[in-house]
Parts: sequence; structure tokens; C-alpha cells
Amino acid sequence: SLRKGISEAIYGENKTPDQIASIAKRMHDMGQAVLVTRVDEGKAGQVLELAPFLQYNPVARVLHTQYERPTEDSSHLIVPIFTAGTSDIPVAEEAAITLEVNGVSVERRYDCGVAGIHRLADQFPVIQEAPVIIAVAGMDGVLPGVIAGMASCPVIGVPTSVGYGAHFNGISPLLTMLNSCSQGLTVVNVDNGFGAACAALLMVKKVLAAGAKGRSSP
Amino acid sequence: SLRKGISEAIYGENKTPDQIASIAKRMHDMGQAVLVTRVDEGKAGQVLELAPFLQYNPVARVLHTQYERPTEDSSHLIVPIFTAGTSDIPVAEEAAITLEVNGVSVERRYDCGVAGIHRLADQFPVIQEAPVIIAVAGMDGVLPGVIAGMASCPVIGVPTSVGYGAHFNGISPLLTMLNSCSQGLTVVNVDNGFGAACAALLMVKKVLAAGAKGRSSP
Amino acid sequence: SLRKGISEAIYGENKTPDQIASIAKRMHDMGQAVLVTRVDEGKAGQVLELAPFLQYNPVARVLHTQYERPTEDSSHLIVPIFTAGTSDIPVAEEAAITLEVNGVSVERRYDCGVAGIHRLADQFPVIQEAPVIIAVAGMDGVLPGVIAGMASCPVIGVPTSVGYGAHFNGISPLLTMLNSCSQGLTVVNVDNGFGAACAALLMVKKVLAAGAKGRSSP
Amino acid sequence: SLRKGISEAIYGENKTPDQIASIAKRMHDMGQAVLVTRVDEGKAGQVLELAPFLQYNPVARVLHTQYERPTEDSSHLIVPIFTAGTSDIPVAEEAAITLEVNGVSVERRYDCGVAGIHRLADQFPVIQEAPVIIAVAGMDGVLPGVIAGMASCPVIGVPTSVGYGAHFNGISPLLTMLNSCSQGLTVVNVDNGFGAACAALLMVKKVLAAGAKGRSSP
Amino acid sequence: SLRKGISEAIYGENKTPDQIASIAKRMHDMGQAVLVTRVDEGKAGQVLELAPFLQYNPVARVLHTQYERPTEDSSHLIVPIFTAGTSDIPVAEEAAITLEVNGVSVERRYDCGVAGIHRLADQFPVIQEAPVIIAVAGMDGVLPGVIAGMASCPVIGVPTSVGYGAHFNGISPLLTMLNSCSQGLTVVNVDNGFGAACAALLMVKKVLAAGAKGRSSP
Amino acid sequence: SLRKGISEAIYGENKTPDQIASIAKRMHDMGQAVLVTRVDEGKAGQVLELAPFLQYNPVARVLHTQYERPTEDSSHLIVPIFTAGTSDIPVAEEAAITLEVNGVSVERRYDCGVAGIHRLADQFPVIQEAPVIIAVAGMDGVLPGVIAGMASCPVIGVPTSVGYGAHFNGISPLLTMLNSCSQGLTVVNVDNGFGAACAALLMVKKVLAAGAKGRSSP
Amino acid sequence: SLRKGISEAIYGENKTPDQIASIAKRMHDMGQAVLVTRVDEGKAGQVLELAPFLQYNPVARVLHTQYERPTEDSSHLIVPIFTAGTSDIPVAEEAAITLEVNGVSVERRYDCGVAGIHRLADQFPVIQEAPVIIAVAGMDGVLPGVIAGMASCPVIGVPTSVGYGAHFNGISPLLTMLNSCSQGLTVVNVDNGFGAACAALLMVKKVLAAGAKGRSSP
Amino acid sequence: SLRKGISEAIYGENKTPDQIASIAKRMHDMGQAVLVTRVDEGKAGQVLELAPFLQYNPVARVLHTQYERPTEDSSHLIVPIFTAGTSDIPVAEEAAITLEVNGVSVERRYDCGVAGIHRLADQFPVIQEAPVIIAVAGMDGVLPGVIAGMASCPVIGVPTSVGYGAHFNGISPLLTMLNSCSQGLTVVNVDNGFGAACAALLMVKKVLAAGAKGRSSP
Repeated sequence: SLRKGISEAIYGENKTPDQIASIAKRMHDMGQAVLVTRVDEGKAGQVLELAPFLQYNPVARVLHTQYERPTEDSSHLIVPIFTAGTSDIPVAEEAAITLEVNGVSVERRYDCGVAGIHRLADQFPVIQEAPVIIAVAGMDGVLPGVIAGMASCPVIGVPTSVGYGAHFNGISPLLTMLNSCSQGLTVVNVDNGFGAACAALLMVKKVLAAGAKGRSSP
Repeated sequence: SLRKGISEAIYGENKTPDQIASIAKRMHDMGQAVLVTRVDEGKAGQVLELAPFLQYNPVARVLHTQYERPTEDSSHLIVPIFTAGTSDIPVAEEAAITLEVNGVSVERRYDCGVAGIHRLADQFPVIQEAPVIIAVAGMDGVLPGVIAGMASCPVIGVPTSVGYGAHFNGISPLLTMLNSCSQGLTVVNVDNGFGAACAALLMVKKVLAAGAKGRSSP
Repeated sequence: SLRKGISEAIYGENKTPDQIASIAKRMHDMGQAVLVTRVDEGKAGQVLELAPFLQYNPVARVLHTQYERPTEDSSHLIVPIFTAGTSDIPVAEEAAITLEVNGVSVERRYDCGVAGIHRLADQFPVIQEAPVIIAVAGMDGVLPGVIAGMASCPVIGVPTSVGYGAHFNGISPLLTMLNSCSQGLTVVNVDNGFGAACAALLMVKKVLAAGAKGRSSP
Repeated sequence: SLRKGISEAIYGENKTPDQIASIAKRMHDMGQAVLVTRVDEGKAGQVLELAPFLQYNPVARVLHTQYERPTEDSSHLIVPIFTAGTSDIPVAEEAAITLEVNGVSVERRYDCGVAGIHRLADQFPVIQEAPVIIAVAGMDGVLPGVIAGMASCPVIGVPTSVGYGAHFNGISPLLTMLNSCSQGLTVVNVDNGFGAACAALLMVKKVLAAGAKGRSSP
Repeated sequence: SLRKGISEAIYGENKTPDQIASIAKRMHDMGQAVLVTRVDEGKAGQVLELAPFLQYNPVARVLHTQYERPTEDSSHLIVPIFTAGTSDIPVAEEAAITLEVNGVSVERRYDCGVAGIHRLADQFPVIQEAPVIIAVAGMDGVLPGVIAGMASCPVIGVPTSVGYGAHFNGISPLLTMLNSCSQGLTVVNVDNGFGAACAALLMVKKVLAAGAKGRSSP
Repeated sequence: SLRKGISEAIYGENKTPDQIASIAKRMHDMGQAVLVTRVDEGKAGQVLELAPFLQYNPVARVLHTQYERPTEDSSHLIVPIFTAGTSDIPVAEEAAITLEVNGVSVERRYDCGVAGIHRLADQFPVIQEAPVIIAVAGMDGVLPGVIAGMASCPVIGVPTSVGYGAHFNGISPLLTMLNSCSQGLTVVNVDNGFGAACAALLMVKKVLAAGAKGRSSP
Repeated sequence: SLRKGISEAIYGENKTPDQIASIAKRMHDMGQAVLVTRVDEGKAGQVLELAPFLQYNPVARVLHTQYERPTEDSSHLIVPIFTAGTSDIPVAEEAAITLEVNGVSVERRYDCGVAGIHRLADQFPVIQEAPVIIAVAGMDGVLPGVIAGMASCPVIGVPTSVGYGAHFNGISPLLTMLNSCSQGLTVVNVDNGFGAACAALLMVKKVLAAGAKGRSSP
Repeated sequence: SLRKGISEAIYGENKTPDQIASIAKRMHDMGQAVLVTRVDEGKAGQVLELAPFLQYNPVARVLHTQYERPTEDSSHLIVPIFTAGTSDIPVAEEAAITLEVNGVSVERRYDCGVAGIHRLADQFPVIQEAPVIIAVAGMDGVLPGVIAGMASCPVIGVPTSVGYGAHFNGISPLLTMLNSCSQGLTVVNVDNGFGAACAALLMVKKVLAAGAKGRSSP
């Protein structure tokens, strides 16, 4: 964790409340930020009784410790997070909270799907300013490629399992993103908001470091 | 053929030049238009020696008889055919020639892919006027959904086998189109320009008939 | 919605009752027709308490506002909807209600599967008259291709998830339809009755407009 | 071979001409009928030089010894073999020759695909008389299910690799057949005309034996 | 039904108890045997209250009317049904009851899987006598091919969904059977005991008819 | 192109030499750098005759114009490119040349696969210094995840089609990378060295800009 | 069982408590060790009432009889079992108990995943000593290949269903292992801890026998 | 190589003759045995000119140096290699030569497929004696599971790409083997004779070492 400066996360899906609480306590006692992903409401309640220093975000299905404040010099480095639809919000929130817990500000721009593709023009300033963008989409997974076509920074596409039929629980939007010709688009696993946030976080850190270095040696 | 008013087509891929020529002659002798799809240049040469009443279009890989002229009342019913990239043109041409052989005019709008998604605005008049649109795309297959989001007529998406890796020879753009939320988009098999043209042709005929009926009983 | 003249639909599957009711109210207050698809009985009850202006159709799993009456000149434009089996009816009803809510009449012809393929002869008059046909089939997905072989109008095939084993929840009938040689058949996603209805609706509108234009300029 | 009374077949695809010729000679010297499947024209020429007692059928891509004559009491037991299209004929011929080499008569009914589904009515007498039917189809693979819906005997469906796009080299028609609701339809591997013929042959033998037994103990 | 002499079956999976009972009554009133497949215990109870003339077999998950007695001349035509494991028995029972309801006797030989492949030698007499065999197997699906290698009659393989991991709910044993080199093996869909029984039944009828004809014209 | 500062690339696979040369000339005349990917040796020769201002790299299968020199302030920003095996080098070179043509230096570290996973320790300094890393791997695709586990910058994984059997032409290493738990790893399509380089280039540009901004406002 | 010296196992997943208890009793009465895999807690309780001579391990989901003590000469032959993550432990425990019930000692080394790949160096002595290793991994399935790269004995990889999205319930780590270049790695089905233990057990027995033989004939 | 005592192998498929020869020379100069797999006849000729110390086996498609003689104490440890068909021999030979080059004797038992499953009884002594068995099979991939059912040692199954249709180039027999219930069967990638031999070799070495240790400390 120290090496990367990302709070180590606990993947909560297949773990018991006891396992989660005990790992979280150990991390907390060592002064680390804690992030537990994929925790449903029932399990979260049980963990919170054992580890009351945690908070629960039911939309993101994430347990986490108090947020770090963005440092002053990072306050202008804001990561926009887009979603195509309302149903993609939980995955976007997993990404958002992961960034916020690690001291990076985010700008939520949800429900910008193809139906409103013309409304994307309104997003142009945000897209142009960003150091890196996270774009979350289920169904046909078109949004990240369209945003990457407008952006001058890397875009991380996150396919979601929102869809039906020939959607294959997110494989179809994953393929759409992998086959996009838009320059600068890379992809993570289906519903992996956490993974997208980690990559975005490392990019922001590199940009921050470069700025700091520039200032110190003009 | 008479029933539908579409010239019966011969699928040329697995047939010998002899088989193609003999079926084509029988149709030609009965006064029917002839259309042979999926014929490579070598095979086409052999067929043309046996059936010199045919012409060959090497881009569309189609053998066909002389075109019907669009009738006067259909001249304003023009079917726009879009492609995302240069490499999708052969499939689009298969569709275009199928329509033209059957007396319907087409408007070719090629190479309108995502890279130039902002240039689609220029296509708005053509998209708004159309009775039906054919949109051909390989790679991520995004174009048909975006056009359907702008159109007020049915759009027929044709995925193509142009792509590589996780493209699965056209299955990825096929899935993109099937999972699109844009209203009015339906889909045909990979590279099936002929099939898209048939559906478009039947729509144009229904619109033509309605216009004629309207004129006769105002 | 204005542009296309299709009532915007809400995809209910991954939304909470609160989300659905609030979007529905906003649309209703703006004078729009409302259609919510994929709503199970429990969720529908909760939405109805919040949005009592809606009605629920439990077979189609659709919430909707009062139907538009078909206009006089559209009354002869009736869209036949076929199903192969009893189990395909919910998907067919999703299509039927979508059309009816938008003022188009439908003709339900359910349970016409291969077992009774000879009985399809009885359907010939309906098939011949139609401006466009919707054909819904699970299992082997054969029905739409057979109907398209008899029709002189476009046919929209809707595969359903009804089946087992090597059916892959609707992928097998989807493939059957994509590989059909019948002219005029196009396809939508598995269980996507709404999507089929949208495409059919746009076709009917184009035919209506042509008739009106014909009448006004004979 | 003696046990089943089917001439053992050699699968020629991955074998050298030398391997094929030497196995064929050994079988021939033991007085057995010989059948070699999947042999292209070039390889067949090389084998024929080494094993001149064989004949080559280039459509079926089969090398074989002289046919057995159907015995008198089997002459009325004729197996109809249907194909959906012209391109399915090689697979059908592999089946036909396998039956003929083993002394069973076949009735070839080729090119009866869905386009001509109404022409199937003409086939009703042949379908009703048959002890067992082989139905060969690529593309959407619909034919075997339709025939099985008309027949009162078992039908063996053979999917072929004729098709493109979402056809997956025969997997799509294979799935169509597996998901058919028509009673009495069973399936073999893609392009496996030989396998279908073996199953048909065993059925004919059982019927023959029953007839003989009936005659001997009336 | 009359044509084939197989009692029409009702696929119960996606039907309501009301739908099942009303179809069953109509068939029963017309003097037909009734067979309803894929009915779980809860639904069966509800149907039985509405249609008390039915009986329920909870292993096969089948509702059916009283069995026909095998006719005298068919009593020696017994169809052996094999399963590889204990867990395959429900599918085998679906086949067994389908045959018994239609007046054909069956011989149950369950749990003969590969672990006991050497015990198959004991089954040789039953295998040799049979007019047709049904072999049911999940897991690796090896049994039907091994039996077909020992038999001189057609064997119908039924893959089952019993397995895990790279089993894909029955697709793996389905593929094993399709790729078998054993002569005379054909295949039906995963878990389709009913379909296998229908094909077996039609074979038995043809053998019976041949015997009767032989006796009448010696 | 101006917007992003990446030289627009031409995907050469499905284009004729004429098409490639004419697009390249137009770009060259406008003063743009030119990059043509997926060009085999034969086609390259034909293009070079028509467009002699291009150079050909046969390993990367890329046609390109003269390289930009890295600017002074970017000279310390070097992108390491790793490959697992010798056979992955062409994909890595496509990435390397794309970066170099756009003025970014690269460090080639080829053949660092699992067999030599212990040798990765030697790479630690290079991994620690990098602003972003490209890791190319076929076979099991393990390398990018292992490098991401050691790095404090984003890592872009490129699966390659090098492998056989259950490798599915690159899909297996693609899945390995998508399922990696290593923080900071994102993925592009199989063999898409160009796409990986584009994302890396955009990251480098953001870091450069931050440094410049820092220096100007210390 | 005698032949191999492995206690025959009962696959509990699709069996009723009655079926399990009755098979277990029969084995127990014959003096055999009993092992029942894939038994959830509820079913286990029911079986234990009927077969109180069994014990239940809820992590491994295994019912079993009393362990054999490792014999003296086998006590130095210890099979290390590694897991990549906490969630893979149930599969590892299924393997561990299978070995222990058969008298072989195991060394549990859990949670050694890629995140801690550098910590694998600590495992070097255990890896070097082992006669055979079992390595269990879900997610990207990288661990077994890395261990096999360090080992001088056979390694058996067990993919698990722990993962999400493009993980396909264990197929992705299965593919990773199949495509590994590490010498000595072989693979079993997803979650098949029992199968891996059987193969390891047979190896240990061969090594034991060789040692005994060597001692008796020096 | 020293660590494991397996001669490092060169995977020849995607390498140029120059690359292969130069790696081979380097290994040869260091006194190592050399093994190059997947080399077709044309490429082998080119390599042999550059590296005349190699020999070529055209069936196995392997280049290799002189064989090691089996040491005296290993001479009784013979690895049987089975194939189901003639077409599987090249994969088996790749395994055989890999073992022989490393000083282990093999016993070739080819063409023992299901057609001759009863002939497997003759193989019982060889199967019983073996320290480990390699079983190679394409088509339905049944052979390894049947042999593992008869053996008391580990069996390594090698699926091959020999087959057609629903065989998926070896995936079908791979799945058959993964789903086998036979104890002691593990699997390698399709056509990976080399990998199977490596695992077998490590087992033989462990058995040898145990024997030597036993003799030295009786």
C-alpha cells in the first residue's frame, strides 16, 4: 500500500463478516485507510457491528473509513465519472468513493447515454479539462468510445452487467469498448469500478508529482 | 419472386460457376432480374463466359442483370446507406446494388465512423428525409445506434466482419447493435448487405403503395 | 420523444420504485404518454401507490398511461403479432401494448408454432394485408423465418428466452433468425418486444405519412 | 464390423494417402466393403494409384468399393434424404453413398429449403412412407424440424457448415435442430453425413429383421 | 397426435397451473393420453386439484394419465434406458414414463457410469436384444458412445445438466456425444428425456409395423 | 489530430495499396505525421512506390514518416515496453514506433516471460521510474499483472494472438489481464499495440503539461 | 477402491440426504473410508442424523469418516496446498481433507496471491521439498503457473469459480493455467479440489512404493 | 533447466529459422540438450543448415539433439503413451521424443480408440505397471478417462485438434477430460504433447529419487 499510495482494498463478495471485520481492523490499527467492495446491505450491517469505525455506502455497496481531504495542489485535478444510464450508477459510485477515500475529487456526470448523445456537447468543457476520465456503461457500451473521441486525456471504460439477452452480463459492452477505434480508451473488467479508479488514481499521482517537481525546479 | 417483387438472389459462395450460370440462365429466360452475391473475381470471370448477359461489380462481389430504372413516383424515396469505415464499403455496395437492381435509388454516405461522429450532424437532413436507413459498421459497430438515435424512420444495422482480436469476425458489432437502446434499430446477420436491402425494399414498397392508394382515393 | 413520436419508455428492471415513479411523474406532467417495461408485480404495486395515474399489465409486465385511440386513417393499418408458443406471450404483449399506447392497432395471433405449421395457411390473409409483422419465438426460433417466407412486408423477429439446454436463454432462436434466408426478416435482442414495436411503429408512421401526402397531392 | 453389419469407415481427413491405402487394402483383402470419407480430389488421386479397387465420388468426397445390391426384401425400404440447399448436397451424398454401399436404397430430394417450404407438401407421400428420414441443412437449419413435424418416423437432422457470420460454421443450425419441438428428431455432428447414415442403416436393419421374423412366424 | 400416435405433450416449465389444467382437460375430454413435463412439486399440486384425472411422478417431474398396457405383440420390444449416475435418473424417468404412457415397456439400467465401465459387460445381452437404446449421461457424457460401440441398434444419447465448472450445464456432455465415433449414436437436447423417448417410440412403431406386415404376408 | 496531438493512424488491413497511399499523401501534404498499421511486406512495397516519403518497419508491420525528436523536457519521460516472449515483439514494436513517431522515447525490455519471472527483479528500477508502462503478452498473459503488482504507475496490458489450443487467438490472455487483481492495470484489444501506445502517449502529455505548468508557476 | 487405494467419493450435489446416507452406510459397513463432497450445511445436518458415524467440515463442505494416520514412512511426504486468496480456501480444504482421509499429510499455505507474489520467495523451501504441489486460484489464475516456474515437482492447478464479469465462473483462470508455459503444470476442472487430491495421492503412492522397493532391494 | 533437469524447449511456431538456430546454438554450446517444438518441414530444413547438430523428426515436428541414454536405474520406469486414433500420433510423438531426449523410455500404444475399447483389456498389464501414463485423444476425447478408470497411477490427458464441427479444434475433447469422474486424471492444453511429457518427466524423477534414497538408507 505504501508503495503505490493506494489504500489496499478488500474484495468482500466471498468473505464472511468475520473475515472482513478482522482484516479491516488490522489495516485500521496500522493507520491505513480501509475500503471493502461488493458488500450487500445485510452483510454490511454485521460488519459494522464488529468494526464500527467503518461507514457504509449502500449505492456503491462499499464499506470505508473517513475520507482523506484532497490536498491543496490536487484540488484542481478532478476526475469526471460518466454513466450511460441510471442503472450504471452503483459501479460509478464504487469508482467515485475509491478516488475520494484516496484524496482525489470527482465530478459525477450520470445518465449521459446515447439517447442524449447530443447533450454530450454540454460536457465538452469538463471532458477537455480532465487529467483522466472514467466512463461507465452497460447495454451497448457505446458511451466510453464516444467520450474518448472527444477527449485529449486517457479514458478508462467500465462495462457493466446492466442489460439482458445477447448482453451476456456485461460481455457485450466490454467487447464494444475493446473494439473501439477511439484513441486513448483502455478497459477494465465488467463492473470493476474499483479497478478503474485505481488506474485513474495512479495517473493523477504522476501528474501531481510532475507539477510538484516542475514547481521545485523551474 | 412475383409475390414479393424482389428479384430472387443466388448465394454464390458454395456454388460452382456451372451451377450459378445455369440457375441464372433459367431466371433470365423467365424474364426475371438476376442477382448473385458473394462471388469472387475468379469465379465471376468463369460465370460471365457462360452467362454473358450478367455484369460484375467487384467491390460488392455481385453479378447482376441490367438495373431497373426507378419509377417516377419512387424517385423521391431514396434509401441512405452509411458505413463507419472504408473497409465496410463492400457490404454496403452489396446492399446498394440489391436496391438499385430492384429500382430503388440509394444515397451512399461512406466513412462516417465514430472518429467523425461530430460530422454526423451534417447528415441530419438526409437522415430526417429517409423512409428507411441502412447503416453498416464493423469494429465496435456503434454507428447504426447513433444514427437510429437521430432518425425518425426504421434503421437496419449491418455488422461487418471488419476487425480483429475480440471482434470475433463481426459478432462484437452484432452484439453492440442488438444491445442498443436506440428506438427503431433492427439487425441482420454479419456482412448481410443483401438481407438489409431486402427489408428496406419491402418497406419502400409499402410506403409507395400507401402513397399511390392515397392519391387514388383522396 | 417529440421527434420520433414514440412515447419514451422507462426500462424498469434495475430501477427502484421511487426512481420509476419520479421519472413517470415528470413525463406525465409534461403531457407525455408513459411506458415502463420489465416491472414485476411486487414493484408495480409500489409504483402504483406513488403514481396512481398508471395502469399495470401483469402479463406484459408493463406500466402505462391510458391508451391513445388509433386515428381514423390509421385504423386499417393493423400490425399482426404472432407467437410460436404460449410461453412467448409476455414478450408479445410487451410489443402489443407499446403499439397500442402509441395509437396503433394490433392483431394477436398466438401459439402458431411449428407443431401447427400447417395451420399457418389460415393466417395467409392477415400476413398478406399487414404493413409490417412482429413474430415472437423461443425454442428453435423457426416461426419468424417461415412467416417472412410467406409475407410481402418486413417481418421483425423477436427471439425469447423460453427454452432449455442448448438454448442459451434465447441465443439459439436469435441465431436461427439471423441465419434465415427469408427475405425481409430483421431481428431485435432476446425478449425485446418493446424494441420490435418501436421499429414497427416507425414503419407504420412512414406508411401513414405517405398515404396522407398522397391524398393531399393526388 | 461383422457385429453391426456396417462397413467400417476410414476418416480420411488427417491421414496420408499411404495410411489410407494400406488400411483400405487390409479391409479389402478381408472381404470387407471399404468407405473412406473426407478425401479431397488431390489425395483421392494418390490413393487410387495405390488402391485401384476403390472408386471416388468427388461430390461426396468419398472413396469406396463396389456397391452391394439391395436385397429383395429391403428394396421397398427406401431412405429419403432431403437437403435445404444446393450447397448441402456434398454432406447428403456422403450419407447417400454410405447407405448404398451397405445395400440400402435412397431417394434424393435436394434443395427443399424454406424458400420452397410450401413445396414440401409435394413430398408428403415420400415422408409418410419412409422408415427413417435424413434431413440435411445449413444456414438456419430449419428444414429437419419442419419435416419431423410432418413425419411419422424418426428423422435424423444433419447440420452443415454452409453459412456465414453468426452461423459459426454449422453451430447455429445444430442449435436450431437441438431446440426443435418436433417429435422424433435427433441430431448428429455438423457435416456428419456418414454418422446419420449409420444410424439410419441400423434402424432399417431392425425393421428388416422384424419383417423377416414376422414372415417366418406368422 | 393421431398421425404420429404419440400422445401430445405439454411443456410445463413456463405455464401457469391454470394453463396446464385447461389444456390437459381439453385433451382428456377428447380421449387423448396426457403428458405434462417439467412440472415441479408445488405446481403439480395446484394442477392436480384442477385436473384430478392426472397422476404425478415427482422424480420425472411429469404429470400423466393412466398408462396404456403394452399390446401383446409389442411386449417383447423393450427399450433399455441407461444412466451414467444417480443424478441422471430424473431425465431417464422422463423418458421412461413417456414410453410407458404410450404403451412401450422399458428396462431401467441406472448408474452404469464410467467408474463401472467394466460392469457394462454384464449389460451385453440387454444391449444386443434392444430395438433401440436410450443412454442418459451428465458429467463427461461418455456412456452413450461406449454403449453405441457395443450395440447393433440405434442409440439415442441424452446429455444432462448434472456437472459443474467447465460442464456448462450439459453442453460438455452434449459435445462429447456429438463428437463420438461410435456408429449409430444420435443426440437430443440437454435433459430432453421426452424427446429421446419420442424418437425411440417412432422406431419401435416402425419395427412393430414391419413385424405385423411380415406376419400377414409370409 | 490537432486536438489530441496524436498523428492519425491508418488501419491498413482491409485497405488496398491505392487507398493507403492516397490517404497518406493527403495527410503528408497537410504536414501531418503518417502511421499505417497492419501492412504486410507485399502491400508495403506497393505503397512505397506510390508514397516514397514513407518508411517501412517489417517487424512492426508499420509504414510511417520520419520520427519527431523527443523534446528536451520530455527526454526523461521514457515509456518501458515489456514482452513476455520473442513472438510478442511485433505487437510491442507497433506500440514502440507509434510512440516514437509522436516524439516519445521508449525503452524495449523484451522476452521477460514467466520462465524468467525472477529476472523481473532486475527490471525494478525501470518499472519504478516509468510514467506509464506497456506490457505485451500472449500465451497465458500473466506478465502485465505481475508488472502492475510491482509498479506505482498505470500499466497498459496488450494481449497477443500468440498461442494455441485453448488460447482462442488471444482471448485467453485478454481474460487473464481483465481478471487481474493488480492495481492500475487496464487493457486494450488483442494485438492492439497502437491503441496501447495512444493511451500511453496521452498520459505522457498530461504529465509533461503538468511539469511545464509547475515550472511556469512555482 | 481397493485397486487404487483411494476411498471412493460420493458427489453430493444432486443427491438427496437419503441417497447419500444409504451409500455412505454401505461403504462404511464394508470397512471403507467415506468421503462426500459438495454438501451444504442444511443437507449435511440431515445426513448426519441418518449416518452419525460421519463428521462434517463446513468450510470444505465435505462429510467424511475418521482420518487415517499417515504411516511412518509417508510422514515426510507432505503435499503443500497453496491458494491465491481467502475465497479459494473451501476448494483447497476439499483437496486437503481428501488427502488427509487417505493418510497423506498436507501443508496449508493460503492467501499467497499475486499481491504478495514477492512473498512467494519465502515459500521456496516448501516448494523445493514437495513430491507434488496443489495450487488453487480463482480470479486471474496466475498462481499455479508461477509456482510451477519455481518447482521441480509436478504442480496440479485448480481454478476456482471465485471472480466476476469476464471470469465466467472459473473458465478464465482455467484458461490461464492451460496456456501457462511453466513446465510440470497440469490442470483439473473448476473447483475440483477432490480431483486434484486424487492425482496427488496417486503420485505420492508411487513415490512411497519406490522408496519401499528401494529399501528392500538396496 | 538445471533446476528442473528438463531440457529447456523452444516453441518454434512463431519464430524465424534464424531466431531458432541462434537460441539452439547458445544452448548447445552450454552443453544443454535442445528441443524445438512445432517446426514444419520447410522451416526445419532452414534451421538444419544453420544448426547441423540438430536432428528433425517430421511426425512430431520436433528438432532435437542426440538422445540421452536412460540410466540403468530408470530403465524399468517406462511411460506408456496411448492415442485414440492414427491422427493423434504427431502429438503423442512430441511427448515421446520429449521424454526420450531427457533419458526416459516410452512405450507407444497407438490407435486404441473407443472403436476398440474392448481391446483395452489387452493393455491392462502395461497400464498397471506404469509410474504415470500419457493418453492422447481428439474427437470425443474419451480415451484418457477410460484409461484412468483402469489405472492406479496418475494419467495425463492430452486433447488434440483432430475433429470437425462441434469439436472446436480440440475444445470438445478438452472438456470431456475436464469433466471426467475418473480419479487421477489431469489435463494439459490442446495438442500440448510437450507439456504432458514435462509433467510425466517430473513424476518419474521423483519416483527415481525415492528409489535411490530408499536404496541408500534401507
